[in-house]
Amino acid sequence: MPIADYYTLTLSCPDRVGIVAAISTFIAAHGGWITEASHHADPDAQRFFMRQQILVDSLPFGIESFREKFSRIATEFGMDWHIADTTRKKRVVILVSKSGHCLYDLLGRWQAKEMDIDIPCVISNHDTFRSFVEWHGIAFHHIPVTHQGKTSAYTKIVDLFEEVRGDVMVLARYMQILTHEVCVRYPGRIINIHHSFLPSFVGAKPYHQAYGRGVKLIGATCHYVTPDLDQGPIIEQDVVRVDHSDTPDALIRSGKDVEKTVLARGLRYHLEDRVLLHGNKTIIFR
Amino acid sequence: MPIADYYTLTLSCPDRVGIVAAISTFIAAHGGWITEASHHADPDAQRFFMRQQILVDSLPFGIESFREKFSRIATEFGMDWHIADTTRKKRVVILVSKSGHCLYDLLGRWQAKEMDIDIPCVISNHDTFRSFVEWHGIAFHHIPVTHQGKTSAYTKIVDLFEEVRGDVMVLARYMQILTHEVCVRYPGRIINIHHSFLPSFVGAKPYHQAYGRGVKLIGATCHYVTPDLDQGPIIEQDVVRVDHSDTPDALIRSGKDVEKTVLARGLRYHLEDRVLLHGNKTIIFR
Amino acid sequence: MPIADYYTLTLSCPDRVGIVAAISTFIAAHGGWITEASHHADPDAQRFFMRQQILVDSLPFGIESFREKFSRIATEFGMDWHIADTTRKKRVVILVSKSGHCLYDLLGRWQAKEMDIDIPCVISNHDTFRSFVEWHGIAFHHIPVTHQGKTSAYTKIVDLFEEVRGDVMVLARYMQILTHEVCVRYPGRIINIHHSFLPSFVGAKPYHQAYGRGVKLIGATCHYVTPDLDQGPIIEQDVVRVDHSDTPDALIRSGKDVEKTVLARGLRYHLEDRVLLHGNKTIIFR
Amino acid sequence: MPIADYYTLTLSCPDRVGIVAAISTFIAAHGGWITEASHHADPDAQRFFMRQQILVDSLPFGIESFREKFSRIATEFGMDWHIADTTRKKRVVILVSKSGHCLYDLLGRWQAKEMDIDIPCVISNHDTFRSFVEWHGIAFHHIPVTHQGKTSAYTKIVDLFEEVRGDVMVLARYMQILTHEVCVRYPGRIINIHHSFLPSFVGAKPYHQAYGRGVKLIGATCHYVTPDLDQGPIIEQDVVRVDHSDTPDALIRSGKDVEKTVLARGLRYHLEDRVLLHGNKTIIFR
Repeated sequence: MPIADYYTLTLSCPDRVGIVAAISTFIAAHGGWITEASHHADPDAQRFFMRQQILVDSLPFGIESFREKFSRIATEFGMDWHIADTTRKKRVVILVSKSGHCLYDLLGRWQAKEMDIDIPCVISNHDTFRSFVEWHGIAFHHIPVTHQGKTSAYTKIVDLFEEVRGDVMVLARYMQILTHEVCVRYPGRIINIHHSFLPSFVGAKPYHQAYGRGVKLIGATCHYVTPDLDQGPIIEQDVVRVDHSDTPDALIRSGKDVEKTVLARGLRYHLEDRVLLHGNKTIIFR
Repeated sequence: MPIADYYTLTLSCPDRVGIVAAISTFIAAHGGWITEASHHADPDAQRFFMRQQILVDSLPFGIESFREKFSRIATEFGMDWHIADTTRKKRVVILVSKSGHCLYDLLGRWQAKEMDIDIPCVISNHDTFRSFVEWHGIAFHHIPVTHQGKTSAYTKIVDLFEEVRGDVMVLARYMQILTHEVCVRYPGRIINIHHSFLPSFVGAKPYHQAYGRGVKLIGATCHYVTPDLDQGPIIEQDVVRVDHSDTPDALIRSGKDVEKTVLARGLRYHLEDRVLLHGNKTIIFR
Repeated sequence: MPIADYYTLTLSCPDRVGIVAAISTFIAAHGGWITEASHHADPDAQRFFMRQQILVDSLPFGIESFREKFSRIATEFGMDWHIADTTRKKRVVILVSKSGHCLYDLLGRWQAKEMDIDIPCVISNHDTFRSFVEWHGIAFHHIPVTHQGKTSAYTKIVDLFEEVRGDVMVLARYMQILTHEVCVRYPGRIINIHHSFLPSFVGAKPYHQAYGRGVKLIGATCHYVTPDLDQGPIIEQDVVRVDHSDTPDALIRSGKDVEKTVLARGLRYHLEDRVLLHGNKTIIFR
Repeated sequence: MPIADYYTLTLSCPDRVGIVAAISTFIAAHGGWITEASHHADPDAQRFFMRQQILVDSLPFGIESFREKFSRIATEFGMDWHIADTTRKKRVVILVSKSGHCLYDLLGRWQAKEMDIDIPCVISNHDTFRSFVEWHGIAFHHIPVTHQGKTSAYTKIVDLFEEVRGDVMVLARYMQILTHEVCVRYPGRIINIHHSFLPSFVGAKPYHQAYGRGVKLIGATCHYVTPDLDQGPIIEQDVVRVDHSDTPDALIRSGKDVEKTVLARGLRYHLEDRVLLHGNKTIIFR
């Protein structure tokens, strides 16, 4: 995570000559010091994507002035754009069920300041991790999700997320399918870790599916949640080798290590504004 | 590949007490020196699998006597079993189309004696690699496969395979779907390399499917061919990392490196009698 | 981790004909049900290594009788051997410093019963993780290690380890060099995670060394501690890709993920009696 | 490899505000269409590195005019810079010994036009691959290297390399140590594949060294050759998992697969002008 303070400028627009020149001239004209810059041009879609990291101290004005001044360029090139200030910590709400490996992993990174975020609360459909979470000084909300009470449960979750001004919702092996309404409300702001190498083994019990098929590697996929189950834009994936001697329980155990690593990597890309959406795909500026 | 000569004994049978004792006592009674031994017990199927590698010179009799003497134990335990002699080179018939990376790779290994096999011939639906193959002193057969002439083409292929007493048929990116008849005729003897991480992206143009889905790793799968397209028992798989900047052509190029490595590894397991079939899955005794 | 109860028999002896026959006949004669068996014959050293996992309930006697009865075979073949009962949880003493990623990881696995062990205490040269450890209901001992007080500190650590009847000492990024005396006292019982891919970058600040050399992958090594710093038998290693944009801090952060995974895997092999020592090398029966 | 024609502009200079603005404004002013752009700022060295890929057809002038016009900016910022035209195929001279896996791999890629290069000749200290190379229509030169005749052998090699106007010399498991004179004559133009994960196992017989140390992964390193043996800037590395059952011969065999893949990847980065040198390290703009 950055030690200096940066503005992170991300944008996409129709590709044409002069985009980089316009942006970099604007930044240079104000003395902006660029520490990282990444471009991508999609030849099929004729669309251009960019991420710039600019030292806050190098500019003579603040983020609001940047927004105002930059908007002229943005309008000229028809940009979808966003600027973030790394001094403002992102607020991450974690949803968890009874499986704690991703929770331990994320709180461990938070405790070590490896992830420089605020975690205003953890929400769970079980009370399992209450005291563990509270020990960290983080609020814990037990919101059971029953078949009949599903709508009211998700109303509570959305209310909480709004109340704490959450930036991103992380489903850290939450094991519940969000309602359509929640999914469409927060596009690109809900991150899930699916316990298979998508698109293989969509849906329930992917490790048992993997065992049944006899695959030689299993994986995990970090993706944005959309109303289509396990079909959202993929942020990160990885795999681990298994063999015939691995029972479904052994696959589950090996898989957990991949899940937590992949979720942490995907979440980091998101938190550092390294992920740009392009239809149902992602551009990751590492 | 072995420098000494071995018998490779592979078997499976219903699991019960005393199998290993019976087998190892039999081998030890005749002075047999075991250089490798691998076991697997499937707890669900209650089935036992074993592979033993025995030094030929340590036994006072030949393979025929071994077969005769061992058959009593095999019958007692209800074994499916097989014994191979590594001094007898396996005869590998390679089928190829217009993409040569797996062919170069396999012939390179053959030339270096890294794979101690006989390649009686290479068969292709195109004439592309004739002179390259023939330069190696290997016969090349151009058997075009047309829509109408499919049956007669496969009759020729089967005839050739029989004529050269082929042990295994390797589809080294052959790009043609074998007829049902050929598939069922050689169970566990036809090896294919599929250019995706199965079960993802079955069928045609898997790299384009992968590009469309935006996956972050692509892979290849070496499997036995069955009448169900891309559904046969998986022998080996591997993946390679890709990103948003990779066009379908770039995926194809990266994928080729995985394909040839995975095919070579899977084929080696097969050639060294390390693969046991268990329904639609494999046990790989590496 | 096993759900059923097993005896785990591990042994090594000079290689010769009849070892497996003698062992398996002994086990079968008493009705012993073998669920896993692994062999390795080292052709250079002419030494044989074996691990057998036997269902406790399948035998008509307990571990003491097993030891007594088996000792005749062991003597005959000149075996170094060991039998463990998986119902007896291993007692793991964790040593940690100020970096908590491995500690979070191990306690997370312990909490999830993914590692079925007892952790009688955690020892640290800093007080950083006291309340976190104690929250888990595990005793925490702060034993500062100063230059002058090194000997007395290690006396305390050894006393504690003995007092709690520790089976294995895990240096979970302990960052202190044990005294020669401690190292030789517990051969094969002290496990360290070194933050480089050994034998590269022995000693201090390996990530800075890696940065200086410009390597494209960094790694971590789980090994037994011997008096020779970072020279002990390697249990497990893994790597992760890095590039020119990674500062030493970024290498440290990426490396942590490898460290905790590699330590957990190596420790698991040890706990399940899958590691046999052979000089300065290990045989890992996965 | 590119299907369209590009100029590839690579440069480095002291870091300061306005570099990108100056360059991109220059390119945009002439209508230049940038298809790929990569930046790197080294915070320690305060040095900036860049690679731009510009469509040839989008510019109203040729490469000589580009050079002339751009030189003013280059001088202003104190740039080390280079521009290449992808329509001009690079000329790759391959040096090989008796081990052919890298040669097969490279010629296979060349044959498939996967590497769009010219191979004016192959040089070897053995005659082993003459007819294989010549079959491809490539000249083969047998230049034995004896202890006494070393200097004259390398004189011949340099003469040949100059005569065919070689751009890059690839040591595809050449197994000979180049003279100091040759190394310093072609900085950043001689690429070697070393059969270990450097800096582990420098020098001779790295697989035997790896076997002796009992590592759990072996690797290969593609690097530029400098007068210090195996100490040159690393371009690419990778590893493969091994275990206790792998003899040195098995390590050699597994290692070959890594060697050829790593060499091909590293060479590709070089050919596509994706490698910038920075002291003894590389920046790879993938």
